Amino acid sequence: MRRRDPHDLPAPPVTPLVWSGDAATGALRLLDQTLLPGEERVLERTRLDDLLTDIRRLAVRGAPLLGLAGAYGLVLAAREALAEGEGPEEVRAAFVWSAERLASARPTAVNLPAAVHAALAATEGLAPEALGPALLASAQALEARERAATEAIARHGATLLAGRRRVLTHCNAGALVTPGLGTALAPLYALHHRGQPVHVWVDETRPLLQGLRLTAWELARAGVPHAVINDGAAADLMRRGEVDAAIVGADRVCANGDVANKVGTYGVALACRHHGIPFYVAAPLSTLDRGTPSGEAVRIEERRGDLTAYLRAGVSPPDLSSREPAFDITPAALITALITEEGPRDPRTLA
Amino acid sequence: MRRRDPHDLPAPPVTPLVWSGDAATGALRLLDQTLLPGEERVLERTRLDDLLTDIRRLAVRGAPLLGLAGAYGLVLAAREALAEGEGPEEVRAAFVWSAERLASARPTAVNLPAAVHAALAATEGLAPEALGPALLASAQALEARERAATEAIARHGATLLAGRRRVLTHCNAGALVTPGLGTALAPLYALHHRGQPVHVWVDETRPLLQGLRLTAWELARAGVPHAVINDGAAADLMRRGEVDAAIVGADRVCANGDVANKVGTYGVALACRHHGIPFYVAAPLSTLDRGTPSGEAVRIEERRGDLTAYLRAGVSPPDLSSREPAFDITPAALITALITEEGPRDPRTLA
Repeated sequence: MRRRDPHDLPAPPVTPLVWSGDAATGALRLLDQTLLPGEERVLERTRLDDLLTDIRRLAVRGAPLLGLAGAYGLVLAAREALAEGEGPEEVRAAFVWSAERLASARPTAVNLPAAVHAALAATEGLAPEALGPALLASAQALEARERAATEAIARHGATLLAGRRRVLTHCNAGALVTPGLGTALAPLYALHHRGQPVHVWVDETRPLLQGLRLTAWELARAGVPHAVINDGAAADLMRRGEVDAAIVGADRVCANGDVANKVGTYGVALACRHHGIPFYVAAPLSTLDRGTPSGEAVRIEERRGDLTAYLRAGVSPPDLSSREPAFDITPAALITALITEEGPRDPRTLA
Repeated sequence: MRRRDPHDLPAPPVTPLVWSGDAATGALRLLDQTLLPGEERVLERTRLDDLLTDIRRLAVRGAPLLGLAGAYGLVLAAREALAEGEGPEEVRAAFVWSAERLASARPTAVNLPAAVHAALAATEGLAPEALGPALLASAQALEARERAATEAIARHGATLLAGRRRVLTHCNAGALVTPGLGTALAPLYALHHRGQPVHVWVDETRPLLQGLRLTAWELARAGVPHAVINDGAAADLMRRGEVDAAIVGADRVCANGDVANKVGTYGVALACRHHGIPFYVAAPLSTLDRGTPSGEAVRIEERRGDLTAYLRAGVSPPDLSSREPAFDITPAALITALITEEGPRDPRTLA
């Protein structure tokens, strides 16, 4: 067997979430992604309620990172249940109740409920004192698996993208959403690290501007050449022959290969199909939800106020009438390949 | 001949540009569209330089209105040339020089240079004193023609759109860009006025948010039901069966029927084609530029700073790397019909 070159991947440009200390007294530190790029503020969380607020207000975001935040959040939940509960049953009940609050803090990414429910099931029957250490070990194992997955995606994706210099991405599926190199951006970091020419077209990604605020920030940090564009400019850049491939992440991959991702993804996929440009989705297998048969079954999160959240005052009519879906569905047939840690897959053959 | 119902159209919800007074002392009053919807400020212009600044900073905008601003601007140019020039040749030379500055103040809309050059040609050989009154009469005639064109477009478009309740539009091609009911919005105003149910999906239209700021404002003023959406949400609304037609204006219609319009238009047209939804372009014949053979020949205006112009401070990295095309090209083959004052046309048969 050929040995893998240990230097073929760079270090992640940022680490958005770190647990430090033991289960009883440790804390979860996370980068507040709502303040980027203007301010790099690290939040230290020891209370579950604070973490729930962080998740709901998108301070921590992205499918893999949400799963990890859920896993570490359970350590806090167990600690609080142990402090408050009178006996094993009461501790378990309090813990399960907190776990369900965590699992449902965001509706679209499957990783959060999946990670929480897996840990719940694995700790059934444990003595209250054993709960915290077991959950911490389980969260750390998940973190290691997710990091390894991003490295495998980086290598598989780099092979697929080799020779495609100008790559468009939508939203932020980079180091900020995983404990490693990211999903969609991981292959681009790998190519750049190997000295291959890469230029990233970054959709600004309205309404919350994850491309402009986050992807541009982490690509700049890593020194990867890029330019932010208006989402509406992507199709015309393709028409002009300036896009060689597109790659995005996924909030949820359905059993039939349909992908739920940040709103705007579907339009990118349609434009790619029209121009004969490959459209890749990079996602760890933890994002696959066999319980959702197709995109039709995904409840699309709508968030009033997103459209105006980053605009200057006075730009929007005060009584704005709007419709604000946060995600959309890209049918499997438009996806050239799903890049997982096990390699590229035709998304229509997952089931 | 059946008499036309004089009450089949509403009054325009707003009049963005008004000349008052005679050629020697009159003034051009225009609504500053950069301040909408927060503030309705009317600028009174008697100096050409002020008007040039207004045109460049997009206080007055939209293809038909730019042509009209150019026509009235020539009255100011003639007045200044007459005041400064020593003899007929000097007056003419100063006037022509100012006219060329006007014609080239914005690159994409053909109406501005077309209106200016038509007036220039028509006034050749006139005595300096006759210039101003002739130009004013010519501008007023253009205004009447453009108003009549929007009314004809309203009627033709309403016939085409009848029964298509949920209509998507991009950018602002409404009363704010013409002396009448607008272009793309004109048929929707007509349908609403006739009591037919209309719901307008308004693309917010990044980067300058003409949909969020201007189209929503004028539709609200006219009482037309609407909802602003993220541009990236349009394709998924189509996938979900919530869009019955799309209609946009045009900055320039090329001889082969390709259309230059606000960036993002092409993506809307592609998504419509994929979903079998009619995609209409409403434009007066003054927008047709027979001198531009196809979209390939259109120089696409790029404007650095548009992406961040309406964002809160701190949202964008200070050293943002960006690419900012302001327009795009929609090939004629994607356009179901071009709606002109003479009726619907297949854009591929213009030449």
